[in-house]
Amino acid sequence: MSELNLATVSGVLAAYAEGKIKPATFLQQKLDDARADNNNCWLSLLSDEQLSAYVAALEDKSAADLPLYGVPFAIKDNIDLADLPTTAGCKEYSYQPTESAFVVAQLIAAGAVPLGKTNLDQFATGLVGTRSPWGAVSNSFDASYISGGSSSGSAVSVATGQVCFSLGTDTAGSGRVPAAFNNIVGMKASKGRLSCSGVVPACKSLDCVTLFAHTTDDIERLLAIAGAYDGNDCYARPLPSTSESYLPQQGLAGKTLGVPKASQLAFFGNESASELFAESLQQLSQQGATLVEIDFEPFLQAAKLLYEGPWVAERYAAIQSFFEADSSRCLPVIETIIGGAQGKTAVDAFNAMYKLQAYKVQCDAILAKFDAIVTPTAGTIYTIDEVNADPITLNSNIGYYTNFMNLLDYAAVAVPAGFQTTGLPFGITLFADAWQDGALLSMAGQLQQAYGFNLGATEMALPPLAEQAEATAEMVELVVCGAHLQGLPLNHQLLDRGATLLEQTATSANYRFYALAGGPPFRPGLIRDEANGAAIAVEVWQMPLAHLGSFLAGIPQPLGLGKVELADGRWCVSFICESYAIESATEITHFGCWRRYLEKQAN
Amino acid sequence: MSELNLATVSGVLAAYAEGKIKPATFLQQKLDDARADNNNCWLSLLSDEQLSAYVAALEDKSAADLPLYGVPFAIKDNIDLADLPTTAGCKEYSYQPTESAFVVAQLIAAGAVPLGKTNLDQFATGLVGTRSPWGAVSNSFDASYISGGSSSGSAVSVATGQVCFSLGTDTAGSGRVPAAFNNIVGMKASKGRLSCSGVVPACKSLDCVTLFAHTTDDIERLLAIAGAYDGNDCYARPLPSTSESYLPQQGLAGKTLGVPKASQLAFFGNESASELFAESLQQLSQQGATLVEIDFEPFLQAAKLLYEGPWVAERYAAIQSFFEADSSRCLPVIETIIGGAQGKTAVDAFNAMYKLQAYKVQCDAILAKFDAIVTPTAGTIYTIDEVNADPITLNSNIGYYTNFMNLLDYAAVAVPAGFQTTGLPFGITLFADAWQDGALLSMAGQLQQAYGFNLGATEMALPPLAEQAEATAEMVELVVCGAHLQGLPLNHQLLDRGATLLEQTATSANYRFYALAGGPPFRPGLIRDEANGAAIAVEVWQMPLAHLGSFLAGIPQPLGLGKVELADGRWCVSFICESYAIESATEITHFGCWRRYLEKQAN
Repeated sequence: MSELNLATVSGVLAAYAEGKIKPATFLQQKLDDARADNNNCWLSLLSDEQLSAYVAALEDKSAADLPLYGVPFAIKDNIDLADLPTTAGCKEYSYQPTESAFVVAQLIAAGAVPLGKTNLDQFATGLVGTRSPWGAVSNSFDASYISGGSSSGSAVSVATGQVCFSLGTDTAGSGRVPAAFNNIVGMKASKGRLSCSGVVPACKSLDCVTLFAHTTDDIERLLAIAGAYDGNDCYARPLPSTSESYLPQQGLAGKTLGVPKASQLAFFGNESASELFAESLQQLSQQGATLVEIDFEPFLQAAKLLYEGPWVAERYAAIQSFFEADSSRCLPVIETIIGGAQGKTAVDAFNAMYKLQAYKVQCDAILAKFDAIVTPTAGTIYTIDEVNADPITLNSNIGYYTNFMNLLDYAAVAVPAGFQTTGLPFGITLFADAWQDGALLSMAGQLQQAYGFNLGATEMALPPLAEQAEATAEMVELVVCGAHLQGLPLNHQLLDRGATLLEQTATSANYRFYALAGGPPFRPGLIRDEANGAAIAVEVWQMPLAHLGSFLAGIPQPLGLGKVELADGRWCVSFICESYAIESATEITHFGCWRRYLEKQAN
Repeated sequence: MSELNLATVSGVLAAYAEGKIKPATFLQQKLDDARADNNNCWLSLLSDEQLSAYVAALEDKSAADLPLYGVPFAIKDNIDLADLPTTAGCKEYSYQPTESAFVVAQLIAAGAVPLGKTNLDQFATGLVGTRSPWGAVSNSFDASYISGGSSSGSAVSVATGQVCFSLGTDTAGSGRVPAAFNNIVGMKASKGRLSCSGVVPACKSLDCVTLFAHTTDDIERLLAIAGAYDGNDCYARPLPSTSESYLPQQGLAGKTLGVPKASQLAFFGNESASELFAESLQQLSQQGATLVEIDFEPFLQAAKLLYEGPWVAERYAAIQSFFEADSSRCLPVIETIIGGAQGKTAVDAFNAMYKLQAYKVQCDAILAKFDAIVTPTAGTIYTIDEVNADPITLNSNIGYYTNFMNLLDYAAVAVPAGFQTTGLPFGITLFADAWQDGALLSMAGQLQQAYGFNLGATEMALPPLAEQAEATAEMVELVVCGAHLQGLPLNHQLLDRGATLLEQTATSANYRFYALAGGPPFRPGLIRDEANGAAIAVEVWQMPLAHLGSFLAGIPQPLGLGKVELADGRWCVSFICESYAIESATEITHFGCWRRYLEKQAN
C-alpha cells in the first residue's frame, strides 16, 4: 500500500480505494480544518448538514465508480455553488444562485465535494489578493506577504492542504500569480476549454475558469472532467482534434523554448527571483529543452492594451446596473478601475482590437517557432503593507508576464520553480498557442519532477508521475544507428516529425556494421549476421505513425526500414541495409557505435 | 482546338496557348471596349501607355509561364492599384496609392492585367449600387434595375464580358448580391483567405476581398493565386490543413443542405423569385443533395446586430479624421449611416459582441448538421427609381440573407439560379463554416453545370468543368512483388489503406528473387545483384503517404521497405530483403515473377 498523501486528488482517491479513509469522517475533518483556517481563505463554508447531503450522495458509490469520489475542493466566490451565496467579493452585489456553475456541476457529478467559497480580489479585479472587503488573504508561507490574486483564497486553500484542488478564474493572471506565490500548479487552459456559465464575468471575452492543484497529473484529471463542452457558454469551444495530449514522461526532451531576452525581463529589484529564473532555465535545459532568446516586446505591448484600452468596459458591462446604481459600494480601487470605462467609445473599442490583432500576428509568428515560451510567472512579490501603500503600480508590476495571455488567446501553466532568499516561493510560466494545454502540462510535469519540491506549504513530498496514459496519437518506435542519432546531421528529420528520444540501447549481438560509400551525409549500414555479429549502439525514438511514411520515402538506397532485434530481444522498426552495398563499404563492427567511428575519423 | 470563349479566365488562357490572341491586341481591344462601357462600371481606366507597360511585362512570357497570363480584370475602387487613384466612391477622400494592394500584386505577378477601377456604393456601404457620386451602375440585363452593390461595377464588368474576373469586397453581402443580380459567381471566401492590405476598410474585423467570375473553375484558380498568406494583414489567416478541396465533379452527391423553413423566407412580394428558389431546391435535390428544413431565426437575429449594433463604429473608425473634418463630403445616406456610430460606447460594443457570440453558438450548432445551408442570395431586386425613393429600407431587404455571414465567420458562394419573369437574374447562396471554401465551390460548380445558363449577360455558353484537379492528399508510389500483388493474400493491406494500382512493370535487370522460408503467408525477397540479376515482375501502387507508416510497421523481418530500381530507371519505395534470410531461402529468379512461381508450386 502506498504512503498516505491526502493533499492530492490521486492520493485521496488511493486512500479511499485502499479503505484508509471514509467520506463521512474525512470530509467532516476537512470541513472542520477549513473552519480553523487562519489565512482568510474562505468567504463561506458548508454547514454540517450541507456536507452530509454530499456524503449521502456518495453512499453505495466508490472510488471505482466516480473519478473524483469524495475529493474536497474549493470554489472562488465568483463561481456559483447552489448551496452558498455568490459575492464576487462584494457584499452588496451578493446573490443566491439557484444552480451551480457548469464546471462545478461536472465536478460534483464526478464525486468531488465543495467545502465552500473562497476570498478574492473584488470582481476578480486585481492580482494581489488584498482587494477584498473581508481583508487580504495571507500568503501560505509568510502571513505578512500577499497571496497573489485575484484567486487568492482558492490558491491558498490548496497550498495549505485544506483541499485537494480548487477553481479560480483568470482574465489577466488571476489563475497563475497566486499559484506562483504559493508553490502550487495553476492552469489557465485555452479560452473556452472550461465553461464560464455560472461565473460572474470580469472581461467576458477573456475570462477563463482555472484549476489549482499540486500536480500536473491532478490537473489533467480535472481538466478531462470539468472540461465537458457547454453549449450554453457562448465562448465555449469544443476540444479540437489537433489538441495536444498530456505526456509528461517526455514533456521537455527535444522541446524548444523561447525566453525573453535579458533586457526585457523585469524583476523589480528582486535579485533572488532573477537568480531563480536563471536556475529554472538551467533546469529546463538539463531536462532536454533547448532555450532560445526571443524579442518579448510585442507581448508586452499587447499587455498594455488590457488596462489602457477598452477592455475595462467589459468589467463595466459585467456589473453595469449595480455600478450605475451606486458605484461607492465597490472598494475605492475597484470603483476607480471600473469607472475608467466611462467615456470609452465603440470606435475606441474597435481601434484597440485592431491594434491587438496586429500584435497577435507578431506574437503568433514568434510563438510558431517554439514549443512554448517560458517566463517568470511574476517578477517579484510584495508584502501586504507594500501593496496597500501603492495598490495600482505594484499590481501592475505583478502582471508584467501575465496580462497579455488571455488577450492573445494563449494557454498557460504556472509551475513552482524554487524559493527566494525570503523563503517565499517563485514560479515560472510556460505558455503556448490555444489547445496546447496537454503539451504545456507535460512540460510542467517533468519540470516539477526534476525539482521535487514538497507540495505547496505542506510537508508532503511530491508524488511520482502516474504511469503514462496511453498516447492518443498512434506512435511507433523507430531504431536509428547513424546520421539520425541525437545531434547528428539528419536528426532534424526525426524532430521535424515530432519524434522524441525514448532510450539509448544496443542491438542484439547479431549485427555487423558498415560505413557506406558516399556522403555527406555519411551513413552506416546494419547487416544481420547471427554467426559473426556484435551489439551495435542504437537510439530508440518514438514517432507519430502518420509521419513514418514520409520519413521512409526520403530514405535513399541501399538503406530502408525493416525490423531489427534489440539487446532485450524486441524487434523494432529500424534502419536496415541491402547487402549489395557492402562491397563498397568499410566494416566498422569493432567500433560498436557510429559516434565512436565518427570520432576516430575526425582525429 | 477549342471554341473561343474570351469571357472566362480559362478560355482566355486557352486562346493565348493556342495562339489565337496576343496580349497587345487583345488587351487594347478590351480596354477600348471598357471605355465604351454604358453601364457606368468604371471610375477610372488605364491609359494606353499604362496598358503598354503591362503588355511589355508579358513579353518573353507565355501562358505556360504565368497562370493568369494576359487575363484582363477589374478592381473595385476601394482596393489600391498603383497606377490609378483610390476613391472608395468619394472624390474628396481620393488618394494616389504608391503600391498596389497585396491581392492585386499577386494577380499582376501571375500575369493578370487590371484595366481599371470600378464604381461602388460609397465606402462600400450599401447593397444597391446606386450610392455613388458618379451615379448608379445599371444592371447588365436591364438598365432600369439596380446592379446590386456595393461591388457594383466589378460585378457588371464581368457580367458584360468586359473583363474575365474582378475583385470586390464584402462586409455584409457586397460580394454576393451583385453576383446574383447579374448572373455570375461571387465568392466570399473565409475571412482572412484574401488579404485586405491596401483596401479601404469598411468594417475591418469583417471585411473580405471577394472574387467575381463566370465559373467555379476560374474562382478556384484565382483563389489559389490571390490567396497567398499576407503577414501584414492582421486579420489574415493561413489556410488550415483541414480546409476542404475543390472537387466539383462530386460537389453535391451525398451532401446534406439546410434550408430555412418557408415561414422564414422573405421575397418581399416577388413571387417569381420565390418560385425560382423552390426550383433551385429541386435542382439541388436532383443533383444528389438531401434538403432539410432548419430554423433560420438565429441567423436573422445575428444579422440585425450589424446595423443596429456597434459595428457601424468600424465604418466610422475607418474614415474617422475625414468624417470628423467635414462629414458633408459623404453622400447624405452614407453620412447618416456612419454618423450613427457617434454615441455608441465601448460597453455597447462589448455587449453586442456577447450577443453575437451567443447567436454564433446557436448558428454553429445548426450548421454543424449540414454540409452547407442554401438560401436565396437576395429575395428580390428593385429598380433604381424604387431604391432612390426608399434607400434604407430596400437596401435592408436586399441584405436579408447576407448580413449575418461575415459576423458569423462563414464562407459563402453566390451562384446563378435562373431568371425571373422580368428577365432579371435570380441567384442562390451556399454557405458553410470558415475554410469550407473548396466544398462550397464544388457544390456551386455542379449546380451551375446542371443549370447550364449562358455566362452573365453575354451570349457565351457555360464551358464544361475542367478535368478534376489532382487530389491534394500526398501520395507515394509503392512497389510490391509478392503477397501484396493484386488478388494475393496480403493485397487487402494496400486496399485498406486507400491504395490504388498504377501499373504492372518490372525491376531493372539487377535483382535476384528468393522464396523465403516460413509462411503462410508465403513471401518472396528481392536482393539487388548487378552482376547476376534479372528483371522481376512488380506492381506499382499509389498509397496516401500518411498510411505508409502503418503499412511499414506491420512488415516482419527479414523484409522491409527501401528503394528498388525499376525497368525505366526510376527508384521507388519497395519491399527489400535483408541478406541473412537468403541462407534458408530458395532462389526463384528464373521465374521472374511471384505469381508464376506460385502457379508452379500449385501444380
